[in-house]
Amino acid sequence: MKILLIGGTGTIGKKIAERLQDNNELITVGTSSGDLQADITDSNSITNLFQKTGAVDAVIVTAGSAPVKPLSESTNDDFLKGVKSKMMGQINVALTAMDYLNDGGSVTLTSGILSEDPIPQGTILSTVNGAVNGFVTGAYGEFLQEGFRINVVSPALVEDSADALGDFFPGHTPAKMEHVVDGYEKSLKTLITGQIISIS
Amino acid sequence: MKILLIGGTGTIGKKIAERLQDNNELITVGTSSGDLQADITDSNSITNLFQKTGAVDAVIVTAGSAPVKPLSESTNDDFLKGVKSKMMGQINVALTAMDYLNDGGSVTLTSGILSEDPIPQGTILSTVNGAVNGFVTGAYGEFLQEGFRINVVSPALVEDSADALGDFFPGHTPAKMEHVVDGYEKSLKTLITGQIISIS
Repeated sequence: MKILLIGGTGTIGKKIAERLQDNNELITVGTSSGDLQADITDSNSITNLFQKTGAVDAVIVTAGSAPVKPLSESTNDDFLKGVKSKMMGQINVALTAMDYLNDGGSVTLTSGILSEDPIPQGTILSTVNGAVNGFVTGAYGEFLQEGFRINVVSPALVEDSADALGDFFPGHTPAKMEHVVDGYEKSLKTLITGQIISIS
Repeated sequence: MKILLIGGTGTIGKKIAERLQDNNELITVGTSSGDLQADITDSNSITNLFQKTGAVDAVIVTAGSAPVKPLSESTNDDFLKGVKSKMMGQINVALTAMDYLNDGGSVTLTSGILSEDPIPQGTILSTVNGAVNGFVTGAYGEFLQEGFRINVVSPALVEDSADALGDFFPGHTPAKMEHVVDGYEKSLKTLITGQIISIS
């Protein structure tokens, strides 16, 4: 399979790359690393990326961020940073992918546990994760009409981020990296669609 | 109770107004109708509204829209229309309300069934509804710290919209208006918080 892995050099992406690299034509994308570079907050950059890759069998996105800050200090502009990156960044990749996927192709996005299981200062992430989940639920039918599938992996705090981020997630049990990667592989290789694949 | 009902002249809002108007100090808000006027897509308009009302006991929002169109024709700008109105419009009302709610005050927002139960052409609404639900899940803890509650009512296609919108919702059983209004009254008068109140 020819797989485009956007965020392929990040915490989750590099573990996905390790699992997929041997038996696939894997193209990793980072903002400044990876096989190709792209910035998902910029629609033109996304289009340029797909023009370089041409048709692909699958797109996986593990890129995108949102501010973490107290709600009482959070402004419209803070929310829009998350909207532009983790929300619309991923959604714009999915929309563009519709023009580049081969028959039977799939898109797999990334949300996260905070839309269901919140933490202090995490409201912007809760919001954009909810948006990405809603997008996949809304979009899968029209993906299906084109012969494509779309799912989203919603991981808990992941093991490899626990040292850096664990203080923000009191009482959260980190998810094992291999279980997180399982979620992406399930989306990629089974025939499920429209699913929010929760990994805890 | 002094209640600010934004969207109080719309399909759902006017039914809420009928139930609440006799025993409360109810202020209805529309873009061009109601006791006061405001445009929730404009943060300054929201601030001006609260400056006029001063402190309130509760805020209910039944305003906000998003484009309905085929996914393959939907652009970043189409999504941003929904982001600006039904998503950030409601979120900005909630953020501003934190500065104007009396002790024990509450905010009740509106999402909708499409984040769980999609229709063709409805992906933008699925996305922004998911965002509003995620916001409430993320925000209720920090609302609680201020002594406030926040919930969201997620109605099915409502009875009074069924003639106009029913063709977009094949097989969807319309929710009775009194049941929809029950959802807002439950959020207003019980002590629940952080809840997505689904009305089918």
